[in-house]
Amino acid sequence: MPAITTKEYHKCCGGEVRRATFTSQTLGGEAAFSLFLPKQALAGRNVPVIYVLAGLTCTEETFLIKANAVRHAAQHGLALVCSDTSPRGAGVPTITDEWDIGPGAGYYVNATAAPWQARYRMWDFVRSELPTTVENAFPLDGARRGVMGHSMGGMGALALALREPGLYQSASMFAPICNPSAVPWGEKATQLYFGGDSHLWDAYDPCRLLASGHEFPGGFLVDQGLDDPFLKSQLHPDALENAARKAGQALKLRRHEGYDHSYWFVQSFIAEHIRHHAEQLNHTQVNHTQAPRETTP
Amino acid sequence: MPAITTKEYHKCCGGEVRRATFTSQTLGGEAAFSLFLPKQALAGRNVPVIYVLAGLTCTEETFLIKANAVRHAAQHGLALVCSDTSPRGAGVPTITDEWDIGPGAGYYVNATAAPWQARYRMWDFVRSELPTTVENAFPLDGARRGVMGHSMGGMGALALALREPGLYQSASMFAPICNPSAVPWGEKATQLYFGGDSHLWDAYDPCRLLASGHEFPGGFLVDQGLDDPFLKSQLHPDALENAARKAGQALKLRRHEGYDHSYWFVQSFIAEHIRHHAEQLNHTQVNHTQAPRETTP
Repeated sequence: MPAITTKEYHKCCGGEVRRATFTSQTLGGEAAFSLFLPKQALAGRNVPVIYVLAGLTCTEETFLIKANAVRHAAQHGLALVCSDTSPRGAGVPTITDEWDIGPGAGYYVNATAAPWQARYRMWDFVRSELPTTVENAFPLDGARRGVMGHSMGGMGALALALREPGLYQSASMFAPICNPSAVPWGEKATQLYFGGDSHLWDAYDPCRLLASGHEFPGGFLVDQGLDDPFLKSQLHPDALENAARKAGQALKLRRHEGYDHSYWFVQSFIAEHIRHHAEQLNHTQVNHTQAPRETTP
Repeated sequence: MPAITTKEYHKCCGGEVRRATFTSQTLGGEAAFSLFLPKQALAGRNVPVIYVLAGLTCTEETFLIKANAVRHAAQHGLALVCSDTSPRGAGVPTITDEWDIGPGAGYYVNATAAPWQARYRMWDFVRSELPTTVENAFPLDGARRGVMGHSMGGMGALALALREPGLYQSASMFAPICNPSAVPWGEKATQLYFGGDSHLWDAYDPCRLLASGHEFPGGFLVDQGLDDPFLKSQLHPDALENAARKAGQALKLRRHEGYDHSYWFVQSFIAEHIRHHAEQLNHTQVNHTQAPRETTP
């Protein structure tokens, strides 16, 4: 298991906030994440954990700084693990001066086309390597996992929950990209990450996954601002609503007058999202086969 | 009255967050502030307002992004006005590569020595021009004002409340610089802003103000982390406690194991600070001579 290097540590709301890295085999280099552990975890109890996927241009820090989630996670005894949004650093392919492809824009897919396919493997990273690594190192209960995301990360959270319903017990999204294969952001990613083959979105596009029979039993809580500048061009919540209705997928989609795409919108509804996860995760059967562990790194 | 230019606007927690500027006569150039208005203000009612002073290296944005205060201000129907920490821009004196003097380090004093004295006039700015300007433009009740600050801003908030008890009805601080004339940060400011005359701190040093008979009837709520790296070298809460005891000044100083100087510490206790202000401001006599105003800028 890779060693974890703590870059920053702060006591916060009775628990601890940590920014850390490890050498990722999946991404071929250093991977960064942020973590909030509630006081219950510091006392050695395995706690439920929400995996958080951020949007374009964000890093592993953005959600924890801007979403105001820590206080609510502390109140419910939940941990938060925030992934970075792409591979980074020396040798990672980039396209200069573009913010919606390359670093900060991994789209939580496994790229298939050169030069991206070697390191842009965010799907495998957030599905497997990140949880395996942090759950080995910290007192997190891998049997009580939620997944949450914003924008590009909302898309990733929808896809993870639909394809891997056994891995997550709760899921929620803010302003997700609902139908990436049909919008400009996704078309740009198709050209670069998938070499132009739009069919490869079948494995990641929430609307396509619903159409092909995937289902998440926990249901989805989705919030969307109606003054979001990306609403009509990139996000397409109506398509998600239609696909969910046809598939019989439980979906609570709330539209909010006046709110935009920013973390000011996210923080306005974060308390209800954390509560949504807490209701599902704190009532899930606790895995008693795992002994409590100390926080070692 | 100077015109206000809105740079950024977002709906948040039922109210609105705004980043704006105006041309400041006091600072001799553009001055920036951030504002949260709760929904009661958007409905045209004059609401109580907390003026927030941030610490070294911060801007008008830092507190609003990192302190997680908006949700709590919204719950209590309070506005927040966050000042920048110094004059900025072309023609403002700087010292290259130093973060604790010059831009971002105005210390909420009026400088007396050249070249600083012309524009480093943050005392006059936060005492007079900022509240006059924003209270003219937005539905804020100037008869129900609080003042809050962090670190250097905690020092400014203490000094403002002690020297101007008629202007503020509530006051609280996170990790304030309590005795600036006796610590390295203040000594550096003495050399540059006061031309070496340490007696000029008499007007701004909270411990000196208490010793010279100043008092704030509303009392102070102060939180301090015990793992704060600046605790012993720069902050000196013990000196504040002693000065308050001798002066008969009401002070609730709470020390917290494990917490540091960061906004992770601030956000851990912000709910109680906002409640402290709300209890004093929401029970202060409302000034009914002012008619409700619309939000015009």
